[in-house]
Formats: sequence, C-alpha cells, structure tokens
Amino acid sequence: MAILFASTRDEHIRTWVPALRQALGPREVVVAPDIPDRRAITHAVVWKPGRDTLANLPNLRAVFSLGAGVDDLLAGELVPNHIPLVRMVDPELTRGMVEYVLLHVLYLYRQVPQYRSAQAGAKWRPLAQPRACEQTVGFLGLGELGLAAARAVAKLGFGVVGFTRTPRQTNGIACLSGADKWPRFLASCDILVCLLPKTPTTLGLLDATALAMLPHGANLISASRGGIVVEPDLLAALASGQLGHAVLDVFEREPLPEDSPLWLHPNITVTPHIAAVTYPATAIESVLENLRRDRAGKPLRHVVDRARGY
Amino acid sequence: MAILFASTRDEHIRTWVPALRQALGPREVVVAPDIPDRRAITHAVVWKPGRDTLANLPNLRAVFSLGAGVDDLLAGELVPNHIPLVRMVDPELTRGMVEYVLLHVLYLYRQVPQYRSAQAGAKWRPLAQPRACEQTVGFLGLGELGLAAARAVAKLGFGVVGFTRTPRQTNGIACLSGADKWPRFLASCDILVCLLPKTPTTLGLLDATALAMLPHGANLISASRGGIVVEPDLLAALASGQLGHAVLDVFEREPLPEDSPLWLHPNITVTPHIAAVTYPATAIESVLENLRRDRAGKPLRHVVDRARGY
Repeated sequence: MAILFASTRDEHIRTWVPALRQALGPREVVVAPDIPDRRAITHAVVWKPGRDTLANLPNLRAVFSLGAGVDDLLAGELVPNHIPLVRMVDPELTRGMVEYVLLHVLYLYRQVPQYRSAQAGAKWRPLAQPRACEQTVGFLGLGELGLAAARAVAKLGFGVVGFTRTPRQTNGIACLSGADKWPRFLASCDILVCLLPKTPTTLGLLDATALAMLPHGANLISASRGGIVVEPDLLAALASGQLGHAVLDVFEREPLPEDSPLWLHPNITVTPHIAAVTYPATAIESVLENLRRDRAGKPLRHVVDRARGY
Repeated sequence: MAILFASTRDEHIRTWVPALRQALGPREVVVAPDIPDRRAITHAVVWKPGRDTLANLPNLRAVFSLGAGVDDLLAGELVPNHIPLVRMVDPELTRGMVEYVLLHVLYLYRQVPQYRSAQAGAKWRPLAQPRACEQTVGFLGLGELGLAAARAVAKLGFGVVGFTRTPRQTNGIACLSGADKWPRFLASCDILVCLLPKTPTTLGLLDATALAMLPHGANLISASRGGIVVEPDLLAALASGQLGHAVLDVFEREPLPEDSPLWLHPNITVTPHIAAVTYPATAIESVLENLRRDRAGKPLRHVVDRARGY
C-alpha cells in the first residue's frame, strides 16, 4: 500500500511530499516519475500529472486532485475511467475564493476603477454611491466555493441571486433554475460572478448573447476557469459599454499571452489565476481523511461525477 | 418650535429639507440663511454652517451634525458652548465605513497594487499569499465606526488588535491601552487602519516616529480626517520602503490640491473623502429619534464630549 504523488510543479513536491511522508511514513509515499513497484500504489495525489502516470497501476483505488477543478484531468483522460476521482475541498481554498469574490464585489461596487482613473488625472471627483441593498450580485456556480462566496456577499447586505440548471437546495441563497429563467437571472445582475466548473455545458456559456442580457453597464467577475467567458465577446461588450468592467482571474490561455488585448484594457482587471490556492497545511487533512475513509471501507467524499464533469 | 436646517451643500438642501418637512410638517423646518423668527428655533441640523448661523438663537436646545466628525464645528466655534452638539450615527454611514475598510484591507492583503503594476507590464506573476490568520490589522479609533469595521475584519479571519489611550470595553476586539503599549501596538500591525477623530491629541499623531515603529513594509489606511497622518512623513516612509502602500481618503487639504505629490505616487491609493457618506433616508431617523427624546425630556444620544473633541 503506497501513495503516489505526481505534480509537475516543484513547489508541490517541496511542500506536499514531506507533509505526506510525515503523516503516512516515509515508505508509503512514492514520487512520480520514479515508481519502483507499480503494484504497490493504491492511491494517487495529483496536479497536472504526465500522460501515462496513472496508467498501469493495477491496484489503484482512487485519485485525489490537488485542485478544485478537474477539467484538465477529465479532458486529458488522465484518470482511468473506473477509478474514483476526488476533487479538492480545502477550507483555506474556500476562504481564498471568498476573499477574492468579496474583494472584487466591493471593488466594483465602490467604484475603485473609476477612482483609480480619476487619481491618474489628479481629479477630486466624488461619485454617487448606491447602497449595497440596492445592488444585485448574481452567482453562477453554487458548489463548495460559490455558495460560500454568495453567503459572504449576502452578509454584507447585497441582494444575492443564484442560477442553477436544475432546482437545488442552496440554504438561504435565492435561486432561479431552468433555461426559461436564464434571461431573467442575467437581467437582474449588477455584478455577475462566474464560479462555474469547466464542462462541455459551461464552455462558451458567457458569450455575446448572454452578455447582452445583463443590464447595460453591468460588471463581471470570472474566477473559476477560462473558456466559460468568450474573450472576443467580452471585449465587444466592453467596447459598446454593455459591460462596465471585468475582473478576470482565468483565461482561455494561461499564462495570458503577453500580446493579449486583455492586459492593457482600461476596463479589465487581470489577476494571474490566484483567486484561491490550496494550502498544504489544511488541504492534506482533506486527503488524509478520505484515505482513512477508503481504508475503513467508507465511501469517499467529494467524488467527481464524470457525467456532470465536476 | 422649529428646526433650522443649515448646510452649505446644495445636495443636502435637496434631500434633507423635503424629508424633514414630511416628517415634522412644512412650517416646522426653516432653511438658513432665511430665518424669519430666530426665537422659534429650538434645534438645528447642520453641515459646515456659516459663522454666525447658530448665534442669537435664544431658544436653541441642541445642534445635530450631519457628519460623524465634528472637528470643523468645534475648531470654528460654530456651536455655542452651552448647547449640546450631537454627532451623526447612521447605520448606513457605519455600513459605508465597514465596506471601505473591508475593501481596502482585502485590497492590500491580496496585493491588488502589486497585481495592478504587473498588469500594466503585461506580466503574469503569481505572488506568494499569506493566510489572513497570519496577518494583523491594527485599529486606531474604536468608536461607532472603528469598532464595526474591526469586527467585520476579524470575521474574515484576520488577527485584529486595537489601541486606546485608556482601557475600555470593546466587546471582542483585543486592545492595547496606554502610552507604554503604543510601540508594541504599532509593531504588531501589518495593516494600520486610522479611524481616529481629529482632536488636538490626534493631530499629527501618525508622524515619522510613529510610522517608523510599524513593521518594515506595513500598509496604512487613513479614512477619518486629514492631519492625523503627517503627509511629508508619510511620503518619506514610502520612499524608504518602511511603508509599503497607503490608502488615503482624507487629507491635510481637501480637495487634495492638483499639484499634490500624493496623486501620482505609485504606492498611494487616493479616494476623494468617500469612505462613508450619510444617507438621508436612514440618517433622518437618527435625528428624529433624538428630537423625540429631547422633546420627551429624555437625554440625547451621541452627544459630543467637548473635552475629548468627539
């Protein structure tokens, strides 16, 4: 029984491997690509593993993703189909996303971009400020991260509404559900927050048609995965004034190419995919708990539904 | 019995006068400078009134400030000494300050200025991000606004510490008190939030000596009154790197003169005294409640202690 750790990021090797070895014993943790006995591997902890890393592991029982999003693993077919894939749920990762969303909802609502441009012109120009209760923040993606972020925004006094394809229990967050409510949802959003997973259904969802249904001058925060917002359509919506400002943490191509028109756009705030990061100190508990559950014959938590893609 | 309304801001006249007249009756509200019968005035609601507006009102019982800060009224000796002066306490004004402080604590902690400068250079540069629980946000000024802001910041998981001259009850916010604790307080602040009233004691408090006691690279948010932070000392502390970034909503001179070096400093964020504004819709309730109390012979709430200056 051994755990395979496979990441293409040096920093992960430096932080996770010693922590896993301390928790499980030094011989229990094997670091890819050096796998002396493939039959010994029962579980794998991975972030962007190599193409064949998870193949030919006859006793593999489950794979744990270091990220909350598993679209790369699914799209690359990196995890054998019959093996449960577990996405990362880490309280510090959730807290990071809550911080990022709160920060940027306040940033847009309190008109930081407008004051920044006034400052650049040395202009003292107080702006009319609506009250938080007069603003509606709409959430797409009401999973672990989205629900926590929506609740935190609601606590500040904003109107909050979510949209889900099928009706679901969201404990306190008002939700519209079903395709027929999609236009009404979008029309209500002063700020739209996209925390959707990347799946065949969500890819390209926020295109020209969707952006046109927002109120004129609405703002957007995109912080889950690139490709859900269609970048050329976003640029067109900003150019026409249909969209006021966009805060983007994720992009169709990452790192965002140096010559992308998004970088220097006055109405776009770019951050380099830093909204929420996994902290090994807390995330390892999530992995270890699931390991204990599996070894005790209990069902794994946070297993990805491959049909849904998250 | 009549209420005198005196403000040098047109917008106040437009919003407050109709609201007061609707609540109290049209004849009950007199608008300065046109005061047909000075003996009829029992109460005044003011914002930067003219020098003699409040003189020669023989039946004046109390003056209500439209602002939370009353330093201008006291410094200008605009309110006769024997008349109780009431500062504004308005839940929406408090909410505005909480928003401003939360926004800018997150803005500094999540390194928005650093990412903005990376964006200006089209650089994809993720930065190491400490956890909120590893950061200490220090609060100067733990009145109505400061305490609400400190509690909101603590709820996000930051370490929060306050400083008060004399020990006092702050319900859940850890406080250091007394001059001997001042250096220890400052040395603990990753982010220092100044919400002090402007009084002879606080004027110039955040000078070179105080700024030098902060940890190297600490950040500052100043959102109550100009003159507490000594601007030339602030610029020197930024130049040496002792201070990392300053978010300033208030200044020694307002509007901030067009040629001030603060405007274009890369490590200063300027906003034009917009942290918290009074909303007539809610603030009028605070005035009316005090009026009812006074007329019923009950003690007024939020009366300024002139010896303290707030």
